[in-house]
Amino acid sequence: MVSKGEETRERILDRAMALAGIIGLEGLTIGHLARETGMSKSGLFAHFASKEELQLKVIETARQRFARDVFLPALRATRGEPRIQELFDHWLAWEKARVGGCPFTEASYELDDRPGPVRDALAAAQGEWVDALARAVEIAIDEGHFRDDVDPRQFACEMYGIFLAYHLYHRLLDAEDAADRARAAFDRLVAASR
Amino acid sequence: MVSKGEETRERILDRAMALAGIIGLEGLTIGHLARETGMSKSGLFAHFASKEELQLKVIETARQRFARDVFLPALRATRGEPRIQELFDHWLAWEKARVGGCPFTEASYELDDRPGPVRDALAAAQGEWVDALARAVEIAIDEGHFRDDVDPRQFACEMYGIFLAYHLYHRLLDAEDAADRARAAFDRLVAASR
Repeated sequence: MVSKGEETRERILDRAMALAGIIGLEGLTIGHLARETGMSKSGLFAHFASKEELQLKVIETARQRFARDVFLPALRATRGEPRIQELFDHWLAWEKARVGGCPFTEASYELDDRPGPVRDALAAAQGEWVDALARAVEIAIDEGHFRDDVDPRQFACEMYGIFLAYHLYHRLLDAEDAADRARAAFDRLVAASR
Repeated sequence: MVSKGEETRERILDRAMALAGIIGLEGLTIGHLARETGMSKSGLFAHFASKEELQLKVIETARQRFARDVFLPALRATRGEPRIQELFDHWLAWEKARVGGCPFTEASYELDDRPGPVRDALAAAQGEWVDALARAVEIAIDEGHFRDDVDPRQFACEMYGIFLAYHLYHRLLDAEDAADRARAAFDRLVAASR
């Protein structure tokens, strides 16, 4: 059973995550969030003692939402190539559904040169996702959908690149064919692995 | 002949570009730049009337440096596939050589959801680069290095994705094999186009 306090906290974190996708994790201060949520700064400090704690909680929230919206739905698909297709589809949908785009992507380029616990948490979450993609490729090899000589980590890296280009073409270049280009690139990657 | 004032301005802009790669274009204020360069705020205001003007000048400076370090050297290579290889090599080197990584990449994910003249200037610069890559592929087709049915804009998009994944793996994930992965992905893309 979820308490009222936990509900409020979840609601704030969802709002904070959306904001971070637009103005960045560094721009996200308790003051900014107070203005956006209509809560008092002291009310927010009861939930998050510092800006760093808020940033860490936003990353943790994004991790949970990503697992719920991208990773877990794909686990229900058939093992092997069908599951990899689902991972890709849900990943693109995750980017598209969010006002500010994928919060991990935005934060990754923002924080890559800023050592500290927030960067560490982000790198850990990204590393976890890369591991999950590589594992899905290993399963596709085990199932005989992909060739034995496919390198799972190379596949994961290229799949990630396709997603990042999609993000750039969709969000910055306003390219209407961004999703088609991503799909064509991914089909080529998959076809070369069969 | 370059005047002393222009020299100073160039020096400030190079410093500002490096800073923007680390703290982002939004974090880059006249006050911040004053602290970093040891100049007075009023001295800097003589060069840049506003934060927005500073941001626009940083993008223009990055455009010029990119042309000098990546695009123009590749134009000296043989037309066709050799030139595309040079474009790729210089692009990776450009990312690697900069303390904060590629300023265009950092700024792209930062500004994609912030409409205005700075985002427009950035999108124009990125669009120009995508066009240049596609043009290089067209030449490779004309020279008979690539097949007639290769889609130049699709190739450019996939090449961009490989670069973005390299940036992520190198800067955030601290992956030692980031450049090898990028090279392997690019070799696969080129081989599939011959």
